[in-house]
Formats: sequence, structure tokens, C-alpha cells
Amino acid sequence: MATYRSEAQTGPGGERRRYLRRASLAEAVQRWLDHPACQRQTESETLPTPDAIGRVTAAAVFARRSVPHFHCAAMDGIAVRAAETFGASETDPRRLPPDAFTVVDTGDPIPPDRDAVVMIEQVRWLPTGEAELIEAAAPWQHVRLAGEDLVATELVLPSGHTLRPADVAALLACGVVEVPVRRRPRVAILPSGDELVDPITGGDDRDRPGAILETNSYLIAGLVEAWGGTAIRFPPVPDRPDALRTALDRALAEADVVCLNAGSSAGREDFVPALLAERGELLAHGVDVMPGKPVALSVIDGKPVLGIPGYPVSAWVICEEFLHPLLCRMLGQAPPTPLRIPAVMGRKTASRTGTEEILRVKAGRVGDRLVVVPLARGASLLHSVVRADGIVRVPAPVEGIEAGEAVLFEPLRPLAAIEASLLAIGSHDLLLDLLADFLARRLPGAGLSSAHVGSLAGLTALRRGECHLAGTHLIDEATGEYNVPWVRRFFAEGEVALVHLAWREQGLIVPKGNPLGLCSLADVAARQASFVNRQRGSGTRQLLDFELRRHGIDPEQIRGYHRELYTHLAVASAVKTGGADCGLGILAAARALDLDFVPIAAERYDLAIRADALALPAMEALLALLAEREFHATVASLGGYDLRETGRRWL
Amino acid sequence: MATYRSEAQTGPGGERRRYLRRASLAEAVQRWLDHPACQRQTESETLPTPDAIGRVTAAAVFARRSVPHFHCAAMDGIAVRAAETFGASETDPRRLPPDAFTVVDTGDPIPPDRDAVVMIEQVRWLPTGEAELIEAAAPWQHVRLAGEDLVATELVLPSGHTLRPADVAALLACGVVEVPVRRRPRVAILPSGDELVDPITGGDDRDRPGAILETNSYLIAGLVEAWGGTAIRFPPVPDRPDALRTALDRALAEADVVCLNAGSSAGREDFVPALLAERGELLAHGVDVMPGKPVALSVIDGKPVLGIPGYPVSAWVICEEFLHPLLCRMLGQAPPTPLRIPAVMGRKTASRTGTEEILRVKAGRVGDRLVVVPLARGASLLHSVVRADGIVRVPAPVEGIEAGEAVLFEPLRPLAAIEASLLAIGSHDLLLDLLADFLARRLPGAGLSSAHVGSLAGLTALRRGECHLAGTHLIDEATGEYNVPWVRRFFAEGEVALVHLAWREQGLIVPKGNPLGLCSLADVAARQASFVNRQRGSGTRQLLDFELRRHGIDPEQIRGYHRELYTHLAVASAVKTGGADCGLGILAAARALDLDFVPIAAERYDLAIRADALALPAMEALLALLAEREFHATVASLGGYDLRETGRRWL
Repeated sequence: MATYRSEAQTGPGGERRRYLRRASLAEAVQRWLDHPACQRQTESETLPTPDAIGRVTAAAVFARRSVPHFHCAAMDGIAVRAAETFGASETDPRRLPPDAFTVVDTGDPIPPDRDAVVMIEQVRWLPTGEAELIEAAAPWQHVRLAGEDLVATELVLPSGHTLRPADVAALLACGVVEVPVRRRPRVAILPSGDELVDPITGGDDRDRPGAILETNSYLIAGLVEAWGGTAIRFPPVPDRPDALRTALDRALAEADVVCLNAGSSAGREDFVPALLAERGELLAHGVDVMPGKPVALSVIDGKPVLGIPGYPVSAWVICEEFLHPLLCRMLGQAPPTPLRIPAVMGRKTASRTGTEEILRVKAGRVGDRLVVVPLARGASLLHSVVRADGIVRVPAPVEGIEAGEAVLFEPLRPLAAIEASLLAIGSHDLLLDLLADFLARRLPGAGLSSAHVGSLAGLTALRRGECHLAGTHLIDEATGEYNVPWVRRFFAEGEVALVHLAWREQGLIVPKGNPLGLCSLADVAARQASFVNRQRGSGTRQLLDFELRRHGIDPEQIRGYHRELYTHLAVASAVKTGGADCGLGILAAARALDLDFVPIAAERYDLAIRADALALPAMEALLALLAEREFHATVASLGGYDLRETGRRWL
Repeated sequence: MATYRSEAQTGPGGERRRYLRRASLAEAVQRWLDHPACQRQTESETLPTPDAIGRVTAAAVFARRSVPHFHCAAMDGIAVRAAETFGASETDPRRLPPDAFTVVDTGDPIPPDRDAVVMIEQVRWLPTGEAELIEAAAPWQHVRLAGEDLVATELVLPSGHTLRPADVAALLACGVVEVPVRRRPRVAILPSGDELVDPITGGDDRDRPGAILETNSYLIAGLVEAWGGTAIRFPPVPDRPDALRTALDRALAEADVVCLNAGSSAGREDFVPALLAERGELLAHGVDVMPGKPVALSVIDGKPVLGIPGYPVSAWVICEEFLHPLLCRMLGQAPPTPLRIPAVMGRKTASRTGTEEILRVKAGRVGDRLVVVPLARGASLLHSVVRADGIVRVPAPVEGIEAGEAVLFEPLRPLAAIEASLLAIGSHDLLLDLLADFLARRLPGAGLSSAHVGSLAGLTALRRGECHLAGTHLIDEATGEYNVPWVRRFFAEGEVALVHLAWREQGLIVPKGNPLGLCSLADVAARQASFVNRQRGSGTRQLLDFELRRHGIDPEQIRGYHRELYTHLAVASAVKTGGADCGLGILAAARALDLDFVPIAAERYDLAIRADALALPAMEALLALLAEREFHATVASLGGYDLRETGRRWL
């Protein structure tokens, strides 16, 4: 099983085979693109012009006909022979009989025997049908000559230009009805691994323990097509060198570029690098980038062959860094140049020195700064790419980035959309997801991005001006009051508004039927039930500690007190799948996974909002949602929430 | 004939029908989008997930399965029962028989009866096949629990999200194999006008004087598809109210939105506004925007109907301003928000007050400023959109923009490409087009943008730091020397490099066979041949004046001395199409249109280059081209150029 190998977690001792020559990301990209096999462009093919939108010109394109194509009127008026108007004046007007002029609108052709246009308002009409002029017309006045805008033979488009709708219409207007474009590069995608199952056609196999859904070929194929190539997806190849060799040969015969997916790490069944070295030239195996380290770069039979790691985020990174510029090259275009925008880091972030790390981040405009907050960093979770507003690169020599430090942000979504969105850092609640979806529907373009770090870290981020709002459910141990004392501790009067979202039920999440008959935390301790906890700094952890103290239970009596998960749903999932007998979480999470629930306490979940963010259009829309009937109805269907005070301002 | 009506050139007296209620662009867009008919979204349809790339989610999408889907190893090692390792230590190691552990790689499933992973490097292998441990394993250590990354029921994507390849792969990974998306809005495109001919199937009709190539429906269809709609192109409708009414009804029956093209001005055959008012509600006719003024906005049978003017640039502007935000609405997305980048205007530009003008501009990074230079402003020439790097809006109250004034630039191409390109302002020569194409091929992404204003205006722009280089062929009347004296007059020593491009032959361009037997400018005067001149400030005009003076010919003896065209090819085209008997221009232009040529003088065409631009990668590539054999061969094939001194530096 070689598909999902964690390059993040494999320590030096875990590498049973050594990577060949390890290179920095920049060096590896250079070595790859500099190889002659990566310098070739695909040949030219000719397409009907309207079919060529999105394609890239393979040669300069020249006009075949002039614009305008004939002499035409530049004004509404009458077309005349200028010579017949010579001498006309106020005192000696010239009268033209009907056959000596033609009424024309702007754009109409000038009849062959005419050479000037007199504006309609300078014509005096006589009852005889004659036109009387009191001024001579200069030859060719108010006439647009054929070719005045564009002359046949002129350059319309250079090579390497991606055709847009306006280009197509302009080419048609100057008589170019077919156009030479670069053939789309064919990219073969070859997944390998015995455990791979197709996510659509896989049937019951998909639920087999150990089955890995083969989603990377869909990812890579989508990227290839978006970048102007043609993707050829191969069925998964079993983990046998001979099978892989045969499939590779077939792919090489069909395609310009081959992407082998998985099998490029250094685990038990990873014979890809050996095969690449045997069949051709291995340019690099292992690059100092995370995610993406186990990439293998090679050239076989004069064709680039890319060994892409199996973890989906690694695959995405490697495609962006190595495959995208290669396809640009093959189409005769410059490599992509990402926008890099100055921003500040919203959270202290460690990074391993010696490896360039590509962080997926959420971003938001808070005050006059663009703030970024890293998302979950595991290479297994493509969801972090889906949710990301962009990326931030941590250079190899850097050990980590402090909160507030300057970074460069590369957006993955339109900047305008990022700037119109709200950034929440703090405790997680399912209602935040719901608010995000409602907000997207009520005010298209405005989103709610949230990073889940727990209540306390959220208030800290809010104080540093690194988010617009923070979800919080912090109990004050002295008074038992929620949130207000904590906000007073962190902020001056008027700096922050505290708006009530919901009361929610916290309790023990247990398997259906509650087989251990757990009714309290005391039962958990007494029956030595296995427990999963939430991370330190989360409101739920705080509640657990509060309740344990209140009942005089030593945390060490709770089996699993030190196992930490990051969301309510992750806790529920651990219970659902037998990873634990119970955990503390909200009713909605138990319901979502059809589990039972033993209430422990009701707690107040509020939104702390920076005062200077209250007038943002997206914030106004968010606050308006709290009073909306449809929102209340949807929350009610989740269960476990009490909305009687929703929208109330405590501060 | 109502298709190509110049709203720019129609004076108040030329409007035979008055426009209804004229609105500013912003007001008109608001009135349009605020109408209930423009508020509807298309219904939802369900697609297989891999087919939904580029489509927009119609509802929030939730995970159907967890990631990971089973408990799996977070390290390479052995899966064990933690309880069987309790008490293991250096002094009391625990030995596990082969059936008590399973070797696992990272990502492998944990067998159902195991609950911990011991890292491979902490296992001591015994010859018996047993695994010896010297440390107890904590339950669930090094195990990724099912759902640790993402739990079934969690929100994956909100409504209104455009699906990218990573989204599709992420959806498949969490079991979402089909996805609800908004149906593409159907947009009917209905060209009208008796003079319309299809640019592809039109055959000989295309060459008929007065024929207008019907290219707008291709433009509009391309834009509709790019914006996520489905275009339905109708054949052109004749200029008869009943025919238009019938076609409109058919289009309304088939589509969500109807675009009538042409017939929305106020000329003789423009009955579109009347028809729209009769069939439904006419929201506006005539908007204070240029190009695009004659637009008509209406709603018929509850569907938006847009009357789009016939000039191609007007059509493009109206689609961008009215159709694009409408389609975004129908797909449940925010209207497009263009990037607006601070820039400076490179050339004094007049504008009509009371009308918002949308200038198509070339742009370049010169020193630390982004400079923009307006392209030709006629609404007839879609080529100005093709060549544009972006647009600049001149607000309605503004009379004009001075050179050096601050403006906001909205790019139409990636900013990185614009920044990597060279900006030339000055005299036009065909070799500049050729250099642009060679440069695009040699250094993909680097372009050469040129604005043609004549030699003198080019040197002025170069001095103001508004371009990187200027093509120039200015003769010094006192010495007869080219360019050097002029550059010395404009620049301090070392500020500018003067690099020789080519000697070129200037002469009389005459019809094939030279029917008037013109051998000199004296002949032109003597035989009263009709002449077309170049604009003031151009090197060719300067050469003409120099030659006329040298031969003692009064300019007024030249018939047509005051008719000005802007390029060599436009002059050649005037001769070709009978618009003039002769004109002064370069041999290459005469050759391009198969005309005869009477040499008058050889002149030196040089490139004046700012010293601080010499080290730009694109400039280095451009200068390298001057020595390239293939470039020389291509120039030789044009004729009329002498490249013996090409690349020589005069200054």
C-alpha cells in the first residue's frame, strides 16, 4: 500500500530507501524546465475560427481583408460628387437633382461614382426633390476610406496568444475564418496502487477498510484540461513492477507527458523511481517542498514523466509547480506568474527548516491589512485547498512565522471576493457553516471564512486585529457567566460588540443505545470508558475541566483525557467508528452521526465582533440573518440549539 | 441600413428620433439589475461531479463519508493491541508473537482488533519472528481516527461556488458523486439588418459593397459561454418590424435572456426601441456611455431583453456592463469586480463631457509607474479591444485627461504579462509588428505594445517617461542627418540609446501599372493627381514637406495634401481602393497590397530607447533579435528594407 504516504510524518529513520539527489523546489523546477524534453512545443493545427476560443495561436495571424471593406459614409447625409458642388455659396447655392445624390446613413457604402458626403443638416430640401447646398464639399469629406481602421496584411494577433471571444470576432471581421493553434498537449494520468477504488463506479469496494478512493486522476485531469491540455485517464495499475512498466509504455505511446500517481515515496512498494531510472533519465527524486516531497522527475523516450505523490494536497502542489509551467511551455506561453500580495500572518506558525512549505490559508481584509491564517496542514486533506483563499510560501531556511509577521499571499480566488468576506477565528460551531452558506446566498460574493482554533485563541486574534469576529463560549469560573468577563479582560469599552448566536446543549456523545449506560462524567471515570477530548483552549475543553472540578473528578481518572481532536464532529466520528466510548460535544454533532447524547450543560455561544467591522456590508448581512425566519427554521432542524435570545447584544 | 451606426459621430442634429430618458451608465446598470426580471436565478440541476467543473453550486454541499474513512496508521510501523504492551520497559521488554501485530505503512487500515501503532524504528526484530518492544504503547497512539480530517455531514462547499478541479476531487473523496448546480442561463442572440452576411458561410456576398459581416453574434455567444451561459445564435432578421417581432417571440420562447443586436440607434430603420416598448417595458433607451450609447434595456414577458448596438466595440462594452452582471445574478454569484490599478495617462486625451467614455489602452511598466496610452477610439474597430491591455474610464463630467494625470486601469490581460512587456510610442513601421511576433515567440509572455503617434510625439512621450522606446525617422532639415540631432535636442547625454533598425525606401505608392505615369512629386502636382497624406508629426509627413521644399513645390499644389491617414498601409489601401491616385509611403506597404512604387528617398528608421530600460529582459531579447538570421530573412522577404547597419548604436 503505497498511495497515501505522509512525507510530513516520515522521519529520517522512517526512510528505508534514501531519496536520490534532493533539490530545492526552485532548483528542481529549473532542472525540469531546462531539460530539452520540456522545451518542445506541440505542433500547429488549423481550426475554424469560432471553435478556437481558449486555444493558443501557433503563428502570427494577419488580416485577410480590410476594415471597413469599402468606402463608407462617416455621417448621415447625402453622397455626392464633390466636383459638382464646387463654387456653392450662400449667394450662389448649388441644386443637385435626385440622380446626383444618394441618401446615406453612417456606415452605408459610398456609390462608386461619388466621393464625398454632405451632412444631412447642411442639406436644404426643395419641393422639386432637389437637394440645395450652400457650401462646396471637399473631395472625400465625411468618407471612411476602405482600410482606414485595418488593412489586409496587417498583424492582428501574435503567436502564443490565447483566443478570447473578442479576438475571434475581430479575426472573422478581417476575413480570417480559420486559425493556426497549438495542438493541446496530451497528458496520460496513470494511478497505481492495489488499494485504489474508483469513487464513482467502485460500488461496495469503496467501503472496504483500506480502500483508497482514486480521486487524484480526477484532480489531475481537471487541472490538465483547465491548463489547455487533453487528459487521458488510465485505470489504476496494480502494485507490480511489470504491470507498471507495461502501463507506462502504453502511456508513453499515447501521450506527450505522463503523470504517474503515487508510488513515488520511499516505502515498501515504491518501485516507481527505480522504474523511471531504469527506463530513462531520473532528473530528481525528492524535492525540499512540503507537501510534495516525494516527487520524481524524469524523461523517458524524450518525453517528460512526472512521478506525483499520492496524498491529494501533494499531488495538487506538484501539478501546480511542475505540470502547469510545462504545459505553458508546450503551448508556447510564459509560465504562470502568480500575483503576490503583501499580507500579515494571523497566527504563529512553525515550519521545518530546510523544506519550503506551502501553507493553504484563509485571508481577509481586517482594517487596512490583509490577514492570512493557515488551514489544516495535513497533505491528506484536499479540503484545505478547497477552503483556501490562497497560499503562503514559507521559505526553506525559515523556522516559522510569528503572528503579525509580513508574508506574501498568492490568491486562489478573486481578490475582490476575498476582500468582501468576513474572517472568523475562534471556536467552531456548526452554525458558522450554516451562516456561511446563508450569507453566500443572501449576498453573493460575500463569504464567511472561519479558522477553528478555540475560543481563547480567537479572542487573542481578534485583539491583534487579525479577524473580524470570533466565536466564543468561555465560562468564567468565578461567576459562571459566559463570555462577558473574558471580553472585558481582553478589550476596552466599545472596542468589541458581543452578539448572542445561540444557547447550545453540551453533553456526552455515546453510541446508539448508550451500551455502557453512561449518565454523567462520574460514570465515565467509574466505568473506565475510553474518552476523546478536545484541544486545549477550546470552550468545550474548558467546560469539561469546569465540570470535572465541580464534581471533584481528577482528569487522570478519565481514560483518554490526553487524546485531542479539533471539532465536535471529529469527536462524534471517533465514537461512531469505535475509536472511543464517548466524548464531550454538542447535540447537533451527535444527531448528525445518529448517535445518542447525554446532556451535561447548556452553554452560551456568542460572536465577538470588532466594532470597526460592524458596518461592513457582509457583517450587516450576517447580523440580519440572525433575525431571519428561514435561518431559525434550519437551526431548529439540527436540534440542540436554543435561539430565544439570538441576536441580543450583551456588549 | 442600421447596423453600424456611429454614436460617436452623430451630432444632436443627426438624431432624427430622440432617445427616451437618457441615464448615466451607473444609473442604467442599477435600473436594469434592480428589475425583478433580472433578480431570478436559474433552477438547480444535478450533474455527475466530474462533469461539474466550471459550474456553480445551487445549494450547500455536505460530506457523505468521512476522511479518512477508516482508522489508519499515521506512521510506518506495527499495529498492536495497546493493552498487550502495558508494562514494557528496557528491563522488562515485551515480546509480541507474529499474530499479535500487523506491519503497516502510513495510511494502511488498522485491523479491527488493534488500537495503536508502534513506530518501526522502535521495534526490535527477533530471529523467532517476534517483535520486541521496550516501551508501552498508549491506546490510539499514531492512529488517524476515521473522520479526523472531515466527518460525513460537514459542509464542503457553500452555494454559489464555481467548481474547480480540486473541488471536484474533494467532493469525490467525501462520497459526493453528484452535485446540484444552477442550470446555465440560455441567451438568445438575434442579429438584425438587411446588410448582414455571415463571415464564414457568406461566400461572395461578403465582398458586396455595403455588406456587413455579422461577427457580433460570434462575439456575444463567446462571451455568454465564457460567463457560464448557453448561447443560441439566430440567423439575421431582415429590417422589417414584423420579421423582428416574429423572431423576438421565438427567441423569448426558447431563452431566459434575449439580446437583439443592432437597430437600437435612432436612424432611419431603427424600430427596435419602438418594438420593445410595444411588447413590454422599455427601461431605458440611450445611456451616457461611449461606446455603447444606443443601448436599449427592456423586459418582455418577464424576461430581460437587451438591445445591443451594432458597432462591435459598443456591443462588447454593453455586454460587459449589462449582460455579464445579469448572468452572474442568474447563477447566484456576485457581479464581477474588476481590479482597478493606479496608473498614469501617457497622452493628452480629450473626452466629451456628459458621457462616460471607456478607453481601450495599452499599458506598460516604465520605471516605477504603470503608464497607459489610449488606442484608436472608433467604435467600429474591435481590433482596439483585441490589442488593449485594459480599459480606463473617463467619468462623464471630465473634459479630458492630461498626459501624466493619474487614472485607474482595469486590466484585460494578466498584470504579470503587461508588466513584462515593452511599450513603444512613436512612428509606425511594419517591422515593429514583426518584432512583436518574434519577441512573443522567443520570450513567451514578453510582448511589444506599440501606439502609433508619429516620430515627434514618440520622442516627447519617451522624454516624459511614458514608454520604453520610440520608433523614429526624423530628418534634420539643416544637416539632412536622421534622428541624432533630434534626440540630442530632447535628451541629455546617456539618457537614451539610439539603435538602428533599418534603412527603408519611401516613395510614391501608385496603382499597378502606374496609370498616371507618376515619376516624382513634381508629376503629382503637375498632373493634379489625387493624393493622401500622413498626419502631422509623422516622419513621412516631414519627409514630404522636406522634399516639396527641396523641389520648390507649394503644398497647396498637391491635391489632397490635407487628407490625413495614420499608417502606411492605410495610405496604400486608399490607393488600392480608388480613394486616391497616390500617396507617400514605404515599399513594404505597396508590396503588401500588390501596388506599384516610385522610390523618392531612403530614410533611417531607428529605435530611441530609455537607458534605464536597456536591461529589461524583454529589451535584451528585442535587441538580440536584431542580429538574428531568421528575423533578417523575414524582413528581406517584405522588400524595401536595408538591414546592413541594423543593430548599430548611434548614441
